[in-house]
Amino acid sequence: MLNVAIVGASGYTGLELIRLLYRHPEVAVTCLTSEQSAGRKISDIFPTLLGRCDLALENLEPVRVAEKADLIFTALPHKAAMEVVPTFLKLGKHVIDLSADYRLSDPSVYGAWYEPHLNPANLKKAVYGLPEIRRAKIKGARLVANPGCYPTSIILGLAPLLKKGLIDIKSIVADSASGVTGAGRSAKVDSLYCEVNDGYKAYAVGGVHRHTPEIEQELSLLAGEQLVITFTPHLVPMDRGILSTIYATPHKPISTEKLFQLYQEYYDGEPFVRVLPPGNLPSTAFVRGSNFCDIAPLVDQRTGRVIIVSAIDNLVKGASGQAVQNMNLVCGFPETMALEGLALFP
Amino acid sequence: MLNVAIVGASGYTGLELIRLLYRHPEVAVTCLTSEQSAGRKISDIFPTLLGRCDLALENLEPVRVAEKADLIFTALPHKAAMEVVPTFLKLGKHVIDLSADYRLSDPSVYGAWYEPHLNPANLKKAVYGLPEIRRAKIKGARLVANPGCYPTSIILGLAPLLKKGLIDIKSIVADSASGVTGAGRSAKVDSLYCEVNDGYKAYAVGGVHRHTPEIEQELSLLAGEQLVITFTPHLVPMDRGILSTIYATPHKPISTEKLFQLYQEYYDGEPFVRVLPPGNLPSTAFVRGSNFCDIAPLVDQRTGRVIIVSAIDNLVKGASGQAVQNMNLVCGFPETMALEGLALFP
Amino acid sequence: MLNVAIVGASGYTGLELIRLLYRHPEVAVTCLTSEQSAGRKISDIFPTLLGRCDLALENLEPVRVAEKADLIFTALPHKAAMEVVPTFLKLGKHVIDLSADYRLSDPSVYGAWYEPHLNPANLKKAVYGLPEIRRAKIKGARLVANPGCYPTSIILGLAPLLKKGLIDIKSIVADSASGVTGAGRSAKVDSLYCEVNDGYKAYAVGGVHRHTPEIEQELSLLAGEQLVITFTPHLVPMDRGILSTIYATPHKPISTEKLFQLYQEYYDGEPFVRVLPPGNLPSTAFVRGSNFCDIAPLVDQRTGRVIIVSAIDNLVKGASGQAVQNMNLVCGFPETMALEGLALFP
Amino acid sequence: MLNVAIVGASGYTGLELIRLLYRHPEVAVTCLTSEQSAGRKISDIFPTLLGRCDLALENLEPVRVAEKADLIFTALPHKAAMEVVPTFLKLGKHVIDLSADYRLSDPSVYGAWYEPHLNPANLKKAVYGLPEIRRAKIKGARLVANPGCYPTSIILGLAPLLKKGLIDIKSIVADSASGVTGAGRSAKVDSLYCEVNDGYKAYAVGGVHRHTPEIEQELSLLAGEQLVITFTPHLVPMDRGILSTIYATPHKPISTEKLFQLYQEYYDGEPFVRVLPPGNLPSTAFVRGSNFCDIAPLVDQRTGRVIIVSAIDNLVKGASGQAVQNMNLVCGFPETMALEGLALFP
Repeated sequence: MLNVAIVGASGYTGLELIRLLYRHPEVAVTCLTSEQSAGRKISDIFPTLLGRCDLALENLEPVRVAEKADLIFTALPHKAAMEVVPTFLKLGKHVIDLSADYRLSDPSVYGAWYEPHLNPANLKKAVYGLPEIRRAKIKGARLVANPGCYPTSIILGLAPLLKKGLIDIKSIVADSASGVTGAGRSAKVDSLYCEVNDGYKAYAVGGVHRHTPEIEQELSLLAGEQLVITFTPHLVPMDRGILSTIYATPHKPISTEKLFQLYQEYYDGEPFVRVLPPGNLPSTAFVRGSNFCDIAPLVDQRTGRVIIVSAIDNLVKGASGQAVQNMNLVCGFPETMALEGLALFP
Repeated sequence: MLNVAIVGASGYTGLELIRLLYRHPEVAVTCLTSEQSAGRKISDIFPTLLGRCDLALENLEPVRVAEKADLIFTALPHKAAMEVVPTFLKLGKHVIDLSADYRLSDPSVYGAWYEPHLNPANLKKAVYGLPEIRRAKIKGARLVANPGCYPTSIILGLAPLLKKGLIDIKSIVADSASGVTGAGRSAKVDSLYCEVNDGYKAYAVGGVHRHTPEIEQELSLLAGEQLVITFTPHLVPMDRGILSTIYATPHKPISTEKLFQLYQEYYDGEPFVRVLPPGNLPSTAFVRGSNFCDIAPLVDQRTGRVIIVSAIDNLVKGASGQAVQNMNLVCGFPETMALEGLALFP
Repeated sequence: MLNVAIVGASGYTGLELIRLLYRHPEVAVTCLTSEQSAGRKISDIFPTLLGRCDLALENLEPVRVAEKADLIFTALPHKAAMEVVPTFLKLGKHVIDLSADYRLSDPSVYGAWYEPHLNPANLKKAVYGLPEIRRAKIKGARLVANPGCYPTSIILGLAPLLKKGLIDIKSIVADSASGVTGAGRSAKVDSLYCEVNDGYKAYAVGGVHRHTPEIEQELSLLAGEQLVITFTPHLVPMDRGILSTIYATPHKPISTEKLFQLYQEYYDGEPFVRVLPPGNLPSTAFVRGSNFCDIAPLVDQRTGRVIIVSAIDNLVKGASGQAVQNMNLVCGFPETMALEGLALFP
Repeated sequence: MLNVAIVGASGYTGLELIRLLYRHPEVAVTCLTSEQSAGRKISDIFPTLLGRCDLALENLEPVRVAEKADLIFTALPHKAAMEVVPTFLKLGKHVIDLSADYRLSDPSVYGAWYEPHLNPANLKKAVYGLPEIRRAKIKGARLVANPGCYPTSIILGLAPLLKKGLIDIKSIVADSASGVTGAGRSAKVDSLYCEVNDGYKAYAVGGVHRHTPEIEQELSLLAGEQLVITFTPHLVPMDRGILSTIYATPHKPISTEKLFQLYQEYYDGEPFVRVLPPGNLPSTAFVRGSNFCDIAPLVDQRTGRVIIVSAIDNLVKGASGQAVQNMNLVCGFPETMALEGLALFP
């Protein structure tokens, strides 16, 4: 039995980790922390857990947390994560970090988009935890940087095209939309029900969203050369889900059938990527609560552009589900363990 | 391994049965029927199932269905169920019927609220499948009448009070609200997104909703005398959930603490009823996707009235989850098998 | 031209006042205040107003506000209102107060439900501003206490029955549900989109909601004797709207037809109350953005209970629309001026 | 007083016309038709209208309709419109057609995307009714083809750039999202609340949406040369609104400030286009119920791409509001008459 701690358990990704791990036969959740709610039961914060997980939330004292757990999920804001991760690693623990702190391999890029990096030494050892791209390295990792939600949907959407060198890397536009859990659980006027409901908007337009360098880092690695993209996030009045509609110009004309075949082959055997046959399109509603990434690759015959539509649940494949998948790989459990649940629809 | 058929699989309760049974280690779903979509794959109708359950939908030919299954869930409209259930029973199958056809023990009551009953012989043998009230009888049953969604929330809410004879049986008012899955998946203007969204309304006001006689039948049995209630359903712009706020006048003054104790004792050991401690109130959001019924009993000190608030997911404890619970009882599986999933929140 | 100030303009009722007054031919909005956003333009806070109302928000300095306006709407939290209203009155201004501070005629009742009243002298002069009940007195008033949202829906729902003495005053149960604007625009976790969406819950159950004494005060006046009621509010995932379903036992059996006739006569000529013919039921969606109160009176034949369903937009007839209606009465404008807009549906 | 008929009044655009025209001081609505609901009152279909507009719906007999009206709004499906418009014109009436039938000036293009055109003679006389682009011609028109909702948002978004020849016309990608009223009011499973709620999806991907040729026709006229674009529509769980995020590559680098200035000058004096200052972004929530088109032009510094975000209410500026604006121009009323209402927020 693996003892697991969740640091920052009172947010939505923390709750989602608890929900998923509750059905993991090889894992026991032994420690939950929360800065704001220490002393309260997690089931007081999230009554869904009542009678099933009633652990008390603790203060975040890294050494005490490490005493209780073999593996630690850090579900903290950026900067807060890299303040505690070094201690966990020094004490020999495995860490799956859901923050942005160990995703950008170049600390100067982190510095440019966030703030000066506090822990470049461990940054070198961190593995970017997108299993479909880097499964082998994750298997031996002590520190996994769990990918962001938008990056997961966009990288999985473009990987086959870039790997095969089929598109003009200057032509990429990723137009994405997210549910409101992406904004977290902190009390902000912008996230109030009445500010969000029955409206749709773009935000962080013009290449200023912090997921941009993460997306570009991984796409560049896939392409084998440095690239920049135009990425625009939008906010949708729904709880969960990210859908990315990605545009690119192919070097040579290609058909939808060919594209489909290419994607099917590339993702053959992947347990959580479903390439939709021509004529089908993904919806965030069809992956809600599940770890799937649904992808439909198409061609716009009139303009020749390739269009990839990809959908995930931002809290599952875009965060906590992928973190559990990474934990399974790190610890040698079957990769799909505790992630078998089908989407909840409607 | 138990082979199971779902008759009427292209509706929301059908899909929910598939979702839940997918994780049942003792059950194989071997046959799905749909009048409208025969020939298509279930995963074409519900892309959530893609790659996990791709069975083709069949026409409803009772004998052929019975050949493929040991137990049959009938998720059909009323009347359609009792046209096929007799055949299933004759062929020695177990049936869990999710329609209203076998819930009212008196065929004349059925006749008054629906239409003439076609199968009074089997009606006598049917067991009303509310495990918390009638577990022993369900265990041996060949035909289980799975309760309605509103009745489940109201009967569980009132059972302790009626069983103990604590309230004036003429004083009961049940004010309930349901998510839109309660209206089913058929194409009606009234169920369109834009007709429902951002609005709240009462419907079937004045004791005319067909769940009324079902509620009264069971409450009367609990009370030991015939009673009538005022029941008002409402429609809430959400997918899932029923919350009932139930009012009654106690014979003698009682405190919230005493009520809580009474409910806790009554439901002691029940795996799916959670009695909330004073100060807590249920929400449909906290049971979404789970088989729980959350109940908060309170007293209005100023008027002396007892108020019971109870919440379920109408598709789970109010339909398909309860049906799986009944199947588990009928077949001798652990009662909670495949129903361990925690609620999806948000 | 009447110069008008809105004190507390950065909340939802403030914005709704601006929206409605924008189309009032006899009124100019000359001053807006906001504690948190002083110095910013109102159209920065609410981009709906861009290019139409770009006034700068000011600090709340009562004397300066009074210099700019003949009539002042106070859209402040309770207590904050009675700290400034005396100054406005002393300076000879008319005040329509949207807070709770001047609604309860007995300061000791206010003290029991809120806190000690700071301004009992003006409390005596305040007129409870429900035009359908107290139009004559509003006409001459200097201080109008604009009714609460729940009270408006419940008092209008019950007035004809109580005025005629037709029901047992001990039997009243009011089960109400509100959209989320009722919780205001302050940043609270409980009002976040993801906490509210796709869920339905009761709150303040057991006679503890602060609108209870206001409802009882007005119902008692209508009945001619002191009464208490059971009132339960619920939260619906929608922006606007309150629907109340009210139950009472009549002294003698009565028919739905008779009830309808009674209500029609009682509200004959009222511009904003629509009594729905038998067979019709209100929805909050049908009054969204309008100043109507839609009422359907019915009888539950089986239990004899009377059921009244009434619906308003909580921001219009439940707050800002009613405040404009009161202003029209106070100032001698046509009562419906600026309130002619039909509901926005869908 | 202008007598006006609305043909196809029981849909959402029909209702929106009634709502807007109700406040038009120069117009009387004298005739409403509906194929499905003839004989019923419009206020039975839409209870928002109760007591304000209770006209009976009539069968669509063109000659009788023409007898009652000087100007006719045709809010019919495509094909149905061109079956009746010729009669209206022959009888000397003005027509504002909200269908697609007279939008494409080349009947062979109409034939390719819809079906053979029945009325090419009148097609030649029709004026595409986007006032910001073609105000002068609308003024004298007998037949106005009211633009589609997606085209309105995209054409207004791109007009300044194309008119000035600043962008590579091969580089245009328009990624749009619509509320559910865009799908109309007919009973379809795909438009059910539970199919749409809490989900986000793309549809008609790959240049197959029928608004594509309409957008391209108008953009080509603005550019002075034939162009094709990639256009992808999405469905958002909300009632109203369209937001388009449009990407293009400028011939030469340009700054956001310059772009803003260009747009401000281009739309100077336009009553219904608001160009948002740098730092502001539109939301469909901010135009809900109003006739505004809010536009934010920006530059992505890292890729050099120009990004235009534009938002409208699809039922107002995208349909009925624009139709009223066109009527005002056709009839010589002030252009903003009956369109002064501010957006309803929240």
